[in-house]
Amino acid sequence: MKTTAFAAHDAHSALVPFEFEYRTARANDVVFEVLYCGVCHSDMHMARNDWGGTTYPVVPGHEIVGRVIEVGAEVTRHKVGDIVAVGCMVDSCQHCDQCDKDQEQFCREGMTQTYSSPDRIDGELTRGGYAKHLIAREDFVLSMPTGLDVAKAAPLLCAGITTYSPLKTFGVTAGSRVGVVGLGGLGHMAVKIAAAMGAHVTMISRTPDKRADAEELGAHAFLLSSDGEAMAKAANSFDVIIDTVPVDHDINPYTPLLDIDGTLVLVGQIGPLGQPTTIPLVMGRRRIAGSLIGGIAETQEMLDFCAEHKVLPDVEMIAIDQINEAYDRLDRSDVRYRFVIDMATLAAPAA
Amino acid sequence: MKTTAFAAHDAHSALVPFEFEYRTARANDVVFEVLYCGVCHSDMHMARNDWGGTTYPVVPGHEIVGRVIEVGAEVTRHKVGDIVAVGCMVDSCQHCDQCDKDQEQFCREGMTQTYSSPDRIDGELTRGGYAKHLIAREDFVLSMPTGLDVAKAAPLLCAGITTYSPLKTFGVTAGSRVGVVGLGGLGHMAVKIAAAMGAHVTMISRTPDKRADAEELGAHAFLLSSDGEAMAKAANSFDVIIDTVPVDHDINPYTPLLDIDGTLVLVGQIGPLGQPTTIPLVMGRRRIAGSLIGGIAETQEMLDFCAEHKVLPDVEMIAIDQINEAYDRLDRSDVRYRFVIDMATLAAPAA
Repeated sequence: MKTTAFAAHDAHSALVPFEFEYRTARANDVVFEVLYCGVCHSDMHMARNDWGGTTYPVVPGHEIVGRVIEVGAEVTRHKVGDIVAVGCMVDSCQHCDQCDKDQEQFCREGMTQTYSSPDRIDGELTRGGYAKHLIAREDFVLSMPTGLDVAKAAPLLCAGITTYSPLKTFGVTAGSRVGVVGLGGLGHMAVKIAAAMGAHVTMISRTPDKRADAEELGAHAFLLSSDGEAMAKAANSFDVIIDTVPVDHDINPYTPLLDIDGTLVLVGQIGPLGQPTTIPLVMGRRRIAGSLIGGIAETQEMLDFCAEHKVLPDVEMIAIDQINEAYDRLDRSDVRYRFVIDMATLAAPAA
Repeated sequence: MKTTAFAAHDAHSALVPFEFEYRTARANDVVFEVLYCGVCHSDMHMARNDWGGTTYPVVPGHEIVGRVIEVGAEVTRHKVGDIVAVGCMVDSCQHCDQCDKDQEQFCREGMTQTYSSPDRIDGELTRGGYAKHLIAREDFVLSMPTGLDVAKAAPLLCAGITTYSPLKTFGVTAGSRVGVVGLGGLGHMAVKIAAAMGAHVTMISRTPDKRADAEELGAHAFLLSSDGEAMAKAANSFDVIIDTVPVDHDINPYTPLLDIDGTLVLVGQIGPLGQPTTIPLVMGRRRIAGSLIGGIAETQEMLDFCAEHKVLPDVEMIAIDQINEAYDRLDRSDVRYRFVIDMATLAAPAA
């Protein structure tokens, strides 16, 4: 089928309208009209080839909500008219130990990413959610629970699961003491989700002007990391710290804040990290871990959790032709806290 | 009571004979004659004030095996004639959450170390195992199981528990894939204990001449970390890596060797660590942790385990007057793998 999208054609140009021919739906495919698509930092990095290896044209977008318009003959999970969602991956091998454990993000053969990955069957590059339509294997298409505002929910598919999964993996429950470092797209979701889990949530920030924002998002406390006395007093007081800072930084102020056996989870920076000292690790059996999105079953669980607990991202709605301006604003961290593209602003393909 | 020991009187002099007056045994004290004492790197660092804060004279030694000669009126765990052992700590608050969880090494008020810590009651500096006698609270005195060669067992009290505890904490059981980095006092115990647990043990080393030694100790495989091809092939193949390297080093060659959800445990270096990359952490939810000896109950469990599985350190027996030469050899890593002092070579105090 023919559809339209916004695509980057090289690393230095703006995203522009792009028409392409989509595969004919396979027996296990779900075809849906994209209603909303969140704008993740990684979309911008991929469009600009910041990590190398981007194949153009690239249609970004992996926080996607839509309405089903067609299903393949063997599809049982979704039907025409359903509100569905797709996150960061659209396929995996489905037979390795990680896939068997519902950890498709760690598929031994590599997950198929929602955009810019070769499709496992025809090798065509996958296309993301900055498009009028999306076609994906039903097993990777999530059901949007009723009660979740579809206009705001899209960022849950990346920012939501990226913070929900480590909170669950590292044992956060009611009464857990959770710290969140970095107040952006990921950080604001970490605060909201941890609070909804019943945790006592502290925003840890270098800038005092984040205090009011953090409290508005549901944080119970604010810790100013430049305040040496407050930091010393906060030693040993967190079970889990979710560190969402997306650049190289020094974690040594944060590890002593962990209690014995506590874990600092890195979900932002992918690359070098400032030289750590092992003293808080050895002296308190503390841990530093990383975490990557979550599996499909866990993503569904997260959506259901967010519906039940009325957890939604704070979003700023934009039209598709504002995407380049949005990228410029992302560069300046000028968004609270996630852009979502209203895909009704993208014209349907000419018949 | 009067006893004799070897002590350092300042950071730069050799250890020399030293006579001192020990406290009279309290109701909950066990008094024992020291039979053997292992020589840990930290003894040397403390004697030389490498970490600062050493108070002189210092009597080092925290891998101690002895025979009970007196017990306080309330002592129930040990009796005269018992073979007992003391490790790195001789007291803790006994009422905090960590003590309640048998994790006295993480006591909220700080454990009392076996030497150079103020006693919790009289404030006198504790004295270690390079002495004819040792007096300690019964709760911190371990029972040596029969079947464990007392002449060799002393290093279990530090090197043994330091490696046993993280292997247990991080889930090693039969069939686990364990890597060990660094083949010294700690490393050789990690190999032996992990193998006794039924794990598949790989020695990871920069130097090929460690291969034969590692196999002799019970390692099932050897991985030469300078062999790029072998390292690439070994990616994702360890559940736990015990890193015993006692100096600043680069862990980036090792983290990709961990399987998904695997843990690298630092037990050697206490201080700065080379700049890590977060990529293996994020992409495989891998973890970096530290670990510090183990609790008293776990130390007893370790001794019983070693007796059952015939696990003993490889030791080189020395007389007490060889201790300064032994320190010089430790500086050159010239020992396989632990010095043990035969304390019969230390004359009893003049009556």
